[in-house]
Amino acid sequence: MGKPKNILFIMFDQLRWDYLSCAGHPHLQTPHIDALAAEGVRFTRAYVQSPVCGASRMSFYTGRYVHSHGATWNRVPLKVGERTIGDHLRDAGMDCWLVGKTHMKADDEGMAWLGIDRESVIGARVEQCGFDVWERDDGMRPEGPDGLYDEKYGAAVYNDWLRENGYHSANPWHDFANSGRKDDDPQEMASGWFLKNARKAAAIREDDSETPYMTSRAIAFMQQAGDTPWCLHLSYIKPHWPYIAPAPYNDMYGPEHVLAVARHKRELTEAHPVFKAFMDGRIGKAFSRDEVREAVIPAYMGLIKQCDDQMGRLFAWLRDTGRWDDTLIVLTSDHGDYLGDHWMGEKDLFHEPSVKVPLIIRDPSPQADVTRGSTCDALVEAIDLAPTFLEVAGGAERPHILEGRSLMPWLHGQTPDWRDYVVSEYDYSMNPAVSKLAKDPSSARLFMIADARWKFMHAEGMRPQLFDLQNDPLEYVDLGESAAHRDIIAQMNDRLAIWARRLSQRTTRTDAQIITERGRSPMRGITLGVYDEADLPQEMTQFYRGRPRPDQPS
Amino acid sequence: MGKPKNILFIMFDQLRWDYLSCAGHPHLQTPHIDALAAEGVRFTRAYVQSPVCGASRMSFYTGRYVHSHGATWNRVPLKVGERTIGDHLRDAGMDCWLVGKTHMKADDEGMAWLGIDRESVIGARVEQCGFDVWERDDGMRPEGPDGLYDEKYGAAVYNDWLRENGYHSANPWHDFANSGRKDDDPQEMASGWFLKNARKAAAIREDDSETPYMTSRAIAFMQQAGDTPWCLHLSYIKPHWPYIAPAPYNDMYGPEHVLAVARHKRELTEAHPVFKAFMDGRIGKAFSRDEVREAVIPAYMGLIKQCDDQMGRLFAWLRDTGRWDDTLIVLTSDHGDYLGDHWMGEKDLFHEPSVKVPLIIRDPSPQADVTRGSTCDALVEAIDLAPTFLEVAGGAERPHILEGRSLMPWLHGQTPDWRDYVVSEYDYSMNPAVSKLAKDPSSARLFMIADARWKFMHAEGMRPQLFDLQNDPLEYVDLGESAAHRDIIAQMNDRLAIWARRLSQRTTRTDAQIITERGRSPMRGITLGVYDEADLPQEMTQFYRGRPRPDQPS
Repeated sequence: MGKPKNILFIMFDQLRWDYLSCAGHPHLQTPHIDALAAEGVRFTRAYVQSPVCGASRMSFYTGRYVHSHGATWNRVPLKVGERTIGDHLRDAGMDCWLVGKTHMKADDEGMAWLGIDRESVIGARVEQCGFDVWERDDGMRPEGPDGLYDEKYGAAVYNDWLRENGYHSANPWHDFANSGRKDDDPQEMASGWFLKNARKAAAIREDDSETPYMTSRAIAFMQQAGDTPWCLHLSYIKPHWPYIAPAPYNDMYGPEHVLAVARHKRELTEAHPVFKAFMDGRIGKAFSRDEVREAVIPAYMGLIKQCDDQMGRLFAWLRDTGRWDDTLIVLTSDHGDYLGDHWMGEKDLFHEPSVKVPLIIRDPSPQADVTRGSTCDALVEAIDLAPTFLEVAGGAERPHILEGRSLMPWLHGQTPDWRDYVVSEYDYSMNPAVSKLAKDPSSARLFMIADARWKFMHAEGMRPQLFDLQNDPLEYVDLGESAAHRDIIAQMNDRLAIWARRLSQRTTRTDAQIITERGRSPMRGITLGVYDEADLPQEMTQFYRGRPRPDQPS
Repeated sequence: MGKPKNILFIMFDQLRWDYLSCAGHPHLQTPHIDALAAEGVRFTRAYVQSPVCGASRMSFYTGRYVHSHGATWNRVPLKVGERTIGDHLRDAGMDCWLVGKTHMKADDEGMAWLGIDRESVIGARVEQCGFDVWERDDGMRPEGPDGLYDEKYGAAVYNDWLRENGYHSANPWHDFANSGRKDDDPQEMASGWFLKNARKAAAIREDDSETPYMTSRAIAFMQQAGDTPWCLHLSYIKPHWPYIAPAPYNDMYGPEHVLAVARHKRELTEAHPVFKAFMDGRIGKAFSRDEVREAVIPAYMGLIKQCDDQMGRLFAWLRDTGRWDDTLIVLTSDHGDYLGDHWMGEKDLFHEPSVKVPLIIRDPSPQADVTRGSTCDALVEAIDLAPTFLEVAGGAERPHILEGRSLMPWLHGQTPDWRDYVVSEYDYSMNPAVSKLAKDPSSARLFMIADARWKFMHAEGMRPQLFDLQNDPLEYVDLGESAAHRDIIAQMNDRLAIWARRLSQRTTRTDAQIITERGRSPMRGITLGVYDEADLPQEMTQFYRGRPRPDQPS
């Protein structure tokens, strides 16, 4: 057993970093994920590049900051020309497949402009942010008066499969997998969209529900995979909303298992304008109600418990088939979930429950034996996975494109020279309530800088936020206006400026090419600043001396 | 006569802003360019986005900062996916053609990756930064021990034409158009590369030399142009080196017409490290010699005089054919030339002789009558031309892609709310001497911020430079370490940071689309933060109430 041959890149959606027993949750036991951590490294400070699905994922897939790739929010198309892990891995001889969610929105206009046919292999990959699609399912099939949120990738195959298996309705994803039934009328749907229904059992057999279904699809992919090394992105929608779980998971946890809410009254009175706008929104208000938390959190825990059981099933299959020994396994999430902490629901902002994610990596190779079962508190970013994968695939580094750094040294017990701070971003221009704070959609932007101790947030045109993670780990005390912390804030502003000025778009030339090309133009005849032929370097003199006399024109 | 129908976008290469009589040169009379200024607006503070050919041009053509498009130096490919004026204008129904130089290096790797065939119309445009090519000639055919600098676009067609016209040699561009003959042996070539030969007559009939040739090619294009509105980029290589002019232009000016050099001893003793590295290079040393300036500057003036005479010929043709009345004419340069000022030759840095360019625009429409013959001191950037052209073509604004702003209000006598400062950049990673100052090729970067009074230069990892353009218009006194100017420097750093954080890559969504899409997800069924169905908005309630009861699975 040497370097891993394959990569299994498992992503959950909206899984908080601390809702795992290996991360310290006292009530939620996740033995299978814990077992992966026991054989790998659990990164305790892994941050996403943006705490919202689409933007975060495009950073995972491109290995580039949101400020670089431009897909700043859900359904903002990733522009043609942005390479992804699929492109990089295939260059290194590794296939790259998708089972599940990406939230990719294709750049239809760009593809049309460049004549890229989505029916071609190249076009299909551009459309799917570089993946070959085994099954794409963005995991949701919401429907409202304006129609479906996503006709094509919203659980369409899964819905067909459900119907084939006896779940008859126009949208079994909603009506069975994500709805319970009313207590007073067991034939009447109780939609999972309504938070009060969260603890009901979804009207579906557990093994027909989304998480086991997607696990089966991943196993089906791996069963047929040939000798070519592969990376499989197995991307689950759960524990993302709708918050409703099939039996028995709906009933495993109750209000007695809900942790104390992490919020403080001073957050309401001293709120930064952007934070306040989110807290004052419908979601913030709802998750500040005890009855909402007591309904939703047990369901959320049940969904995670089901995910963990599916990890047990998946890992058993990997062990049985030998894949456990030749596959690098990565388990992470695209962002967290506030769950009422900080008077917030959902994600969007930069408190730890939202922007920090679980990240466990198991490298089967002997070089990783020294780190098995350890944790690593290095400041890790989502963009670090792409270069990690490229190293596994044996490809040359591409720092002129990939802005992250390979995590392999950490897995092998080395202590590389590492970054001092992580960066995350958020575009709130799509939020009708919050966007009132920005003068136009291009100004509605937030940046986070977090280092070992401090977390800083910059909002264009507004005051900063600052939290001392060491003395205030729950992030209650905003020091953004503290005179005693001016130097820290100035340092954070400097770091943000250095980061913002970074060279992110010179992607068509490697550093090595630049060094090779340096100073070559004289040898191709561009001899600047030479007054007299006698001043030429010898090789150029020979070149000029050897030239024939031109014929004068007739 | 209403809005102009066509655009004639004339660019010279390395033409200093102040080497025109309309800009105050006391010895160099440029009556034809002056006549254009007399009927248009001359912008007195127009800056290029980078004082080097390739990067500057890619900003002119894309309407985007170098930090956004990534083609940071000569021969760094412009990546596939960057749209240019050709793409924008064609969308608005205007053709966009090239006669002359672009310095475009195609992104071969990106084109291959995306399957874009350069033999197709789309591929040809991607390869040519959006232009349809009437004749591309990057204006130089240097050759050295390693071969030709540019086989394909380096005066290849012109060389064939010269040979057909009796100039027999392997490289008549060099041997005739850019070389004189030795005094002691009139058959022996005296290469224009050697600065001591600058005042010799190029061994070519004046009307066969490059500037008249390219003017003829532009006239040939316009003669055959049909009714479709066109933008023609007529892009001359001159007065760019080799500094040698055909008779009579070689002999029109002498040392007595060379202006006093603008340099100061304190520049040598107090030099910023980057500035010092350039000054200490072969070019800086050469142009600090009087004999070099006295040879080169008269030749440079002669080349400009020839350019002006060709403008006379071109403008006469336009008047004779009616094109003068339906064509917006723009005359500018891609950067300037130090010519020994500040102990420098060439360009590269941010002193006014290098980074400021001539910019004259004549709009034939009556709305522009109020500004004819005026100057405008607004802070203009090269990226402003693309949105100006798009407005002429009648296309909708594209601020999500184009980072400049239309100059049409200035041409029509309005005073728009305008930027407070301009930005220019420079990547010195390709310069073998100067690049020693940077720890790697991605750190070798400079930024300039200039406002109405101050000019600030930031070099990554080094001290800043600051000049007071009001009290020190020749930029001799570097205030970068002046305690009295700390606030100005801090303000300039803030401006640089704001600029660097700007949203430049969200090019796949317009502001209007974002505003339209705001808050639409509930109407497509994403109903977050709703505890009870009774809390739903009315239209959503109807939607839920109207749903049929699902059949339970068999």
